[in-house]
Amino acid sequence: MSTRFADDPSLLSASAAADLLQQRRLGAEELLRACLRRIAEREPEVMAWCSLDAESALAQARMLDSGPLRGPLHGLPLAVKDLFDTQDFVSSYGSPIYAQHRPVADAAAVALCREAGAIVLGKTVTTEFATFSPGPTRNPHNPAHTPGGSSSGSAAAIGAHMVPLALGTQTAASIIRPAAYCGVVGFKPSFGLIARAGIKSLSESLDTVGGFGRCVADVALLTSVMACAPAWRQLGVDRPPRIGLCRTPQWQAASDATRHAVESTAQRLRLAGAHVVDVTLPASFAALPEIHDQIMWADAYKALADERLRHPHQISENLQQRLAIGEKIDVVQNRYNRDRVAQARADLTQVFAECDLLLTPSTHSEAEVGLGQTGDPLFSRTWSALGLPSLHLPTGTGTRGLPLGVQLVGPLGSDAQTLAWCHWTERQLNLS
Amino acid sequence: MSTRFADDPSLLSASAAADLLQQRRLGAEELLRACLRRIAEREPEVMAWCSLDAESALAQARMLDSGPLRGPLHGLPLAVKDLFDTQDFVSSYGSPIYAQHRPVADAAAVALCREAGAIVLGKTVTTEFATFSPGPTRNPHNPAHTPGGSSSGSAAAIGAHMVPLALGTQTAASIIRPAAYCGVVGFKPSFGLIARAGIKSLSESLDTVGGFGRCVADVALLTSVMACAPAWRQLGVDRPPRIGLCRTPQWQAASDATRHAVESTAQRLRLAGAHVVDVTLPASFAALPEIHDQIMWADAYKALADERLRHPHQISENLQQRLAIGEKIDVVQNRYNRDRVAQARADLTQVFAECDLLLTPSTHSEAEVGLGQTGDPLFSRTWSALGLPSLHLPTGTGTRGLPLGVQLVGPLGSDAQTLAWCHWTERQLNLS
Repeated sequence: MSTRFADDPSLLSASAAADLLQQRRLGAEELLRACLRRIAEREPEVMAWCSLDAESALAQARMLDSGPLRGPLHGLPLAVKDLFDTQDFVSSYGSPIYAQHRPVADAAAVALCREAGAIVLGKTVTTEFATFSPGPTRNPHNPAHTPGGSSSGSAAAIGAHMVPLALGTQTAASIIRPAAYCGVVGFKPSFGLIARAGIKSLSESLDTVGGFGRCVADVALLTSVMACAPAWRQLGVDRPPRIGLCRTPQWQAASDATRHAVESTAQRLRLAGAHVVDVTLPASFAALPEIHDQIMWADAYKALADERLRHPHQISENLQQRLAIGEKIDVVQNRYNRDRVAQARADLTQVFAECDLLLTPSTHSEAEVGLGQTGDPLFSRTWSALGLPSLHLPTGTGTRGLPLGVQLVGPLGSDAQTLAWCHWTERQLNLS
Repeated sequence: MSTRFADDPSLLSASAAADLLQQRRLGAEELLRACLRRIAEREPEVMAWCSLDAESALAQARMLDSGPLRGPLHGLPLAVKDLFDTQDFVSSYGSPIYAQHRPVADAAAVALCREAGAIVLGKTVTTEFATFSPGPTRNPHNPAHTPGGSSSGSAAAIGAHMVPLALGTQTAASIIRPAAYCGVVGFKPSFGLIARAGIKSLSESLDTVGGFGRCVADVALLTSVMACAPAWRQLGVDRPPRIGLCRTPQWQAASDATRHAVESTAQRLRLAGAHVVDVTLPASFAALPEIHDQIMWADAYKALADERLRHPHQISENLQQRLAIGEKIDVVQNRYNRDRVAQARADLTQVFAECDLLLTPSTHSEAEVGLGQTGDPLFSRTWSALGLPSLHLPTGTGTRGLPLGVQLVGPLGSDAQTLAWCHWTERQLNLS
């Protein structure tokens, strides 16, 4: 263990901690106690958790320390977004309707993490059914600002060093945006890579399981476990990537600082040996943010049918309004929308013919002030609609002193390769 | 009400009963009592149900009779496959692991049927997690024969006239096969048409919600409600369809009677004015049955992670073996399989350039003797892999005196039009 972390393992990245745990140079209980100290210190301000069971986690840690190595996540404390079912915690999905709901099974992704040796420490705050009505969580870098959503608690818990790994989901921007606001690495894998069994469904066409960590290797480790793939620990590449600088049709909506972060990152990667090209998106992409929104609410209107019918008064007015939008999108319009996404997906071949990785904004700007909203998902809608693997990489701070970074997007299904290019990028920027 | 049905409304099709219910010429309670009499008579032999609440259903029927019209399914008793969550019935998914499981919410499809006025009478038997280990249900036409699976109880309940409508799901052939064996109409809509929220996940890439009735209009009515579409009651067409006679590469595996049913149906439709062409499937289709099997078990291995880990001894040996197959399919193979499906899907344009509807076998043969298995899904794997809307239409009986029919398959997303072509086909064959 490096001297720097010797006194506080909560500062270790998940991948560094995993190495030490696998070598038995760090105990699961030792790491967990460091996390619990950090939580005791920061949670009153950050409010990342909706439930937490320190005693059960400590018992699991002691069992792991005294037993054989379980798998690549052996001994790593894990925060689970409260959109995932867990058999040992109430699972509320951010809704009062489910305030007392205790599922009988773990979501598949949670079960796979446990099988790999992770310790589920508790559940983290989600917005209402992963939509736009926020929970109590505050930005760990400034409690007057939103942490983003919908995976608010998971991103904030990583940003506050409360745990090394956290699970999230993304339908619009629910991983990328809170990762950006909280200054952590967030990865939304390719649509379909990770099973969604046991996750409260919002939009079947879009919902994607992913996670948060402190560096690219962390989210690679977590993703590989949930994808039932061999641990993606070797993220080497044999050449620098071809980077597609993609300003998107929404470029003018981004703040000066955000645009500067993207462009200066491009410049630094060029100097590091990357071939950087300007990418103009095909015309079929222009309407994707609006189409994404329509697909999402049309799906949500159906998926939340039971809640609409039996508990209408426990659904927020904000969500009621969005569901009313979804109700109006008929089968014909929905099919048209899906066909347009399919068309844009076919045009991806030309986008990725000239680059390996797109470099593009994650959000408009740093986290906005106020806790009444979680920010605009605009800059992730296109990639969520297309199902592409996308990663937020923090690069510095903005004019408000809050974290800022860039979004990196790879081809559909190329998750391991995309993470390897992201890892190269992170190294060149001296971020890990 | 026609004289024929005056004494026994359980013999009415759902669409005929719906018309009478909407006109208040048939009471919901009257229809329900007829169904309950039929159940009392047939259930000891057929064993279609795993739970049933006659008192609650009667109370709902009386409320519907004394209140305003609720929607297009007003007063129709509905059987729900026990793979769907229901807040008022145990939901066991065909597994002892969930023998006592009572969900807190209805599956979205169930909630939408209730909203439209359907009365959920109870849950029907499914095989274990909708796979291949059968429940107790017997074929309503001969109790020594399998009803097919996995939607065994739903198809048998319709075949025995216990209810006018039933919900099912299909991952491989779980609607088409039991519909064929039980001699009822079964419809598997396009992949993605109906929300799967609250259904036990087996394979996210394939699981599709659908249903059973006694004629095409019945499944059109049910499907439109679950798709949040205006009721598909007008199924008129302005010309006869172009029928693609599709023997498939599996033709030699079909029995003489099955091949005769398909070919004689083609001949009858030709005489009725349909343009019938022979369709040879593109080369990309040949491997789809095998690829379908691999995708299904790779998904299932992940989706059933919690059950594998916490309840391994309550999973049947048969399913354990299939999950072991899924475990061996790695991320690269899975991506290759999905790419091959995408390629075949792109080739569908050429298939449907020359026809509106494919005419193809539903199963190898009539229901096989014995209750230890549910038959081979071979003849539906291709269409399930591609996500195409497919319907089983009974056409007569085979050499064993059990029902026989044909499968009709339409283009992706053309559910309403496909049902209209199927309705034309049914009328020409004098089946309704």
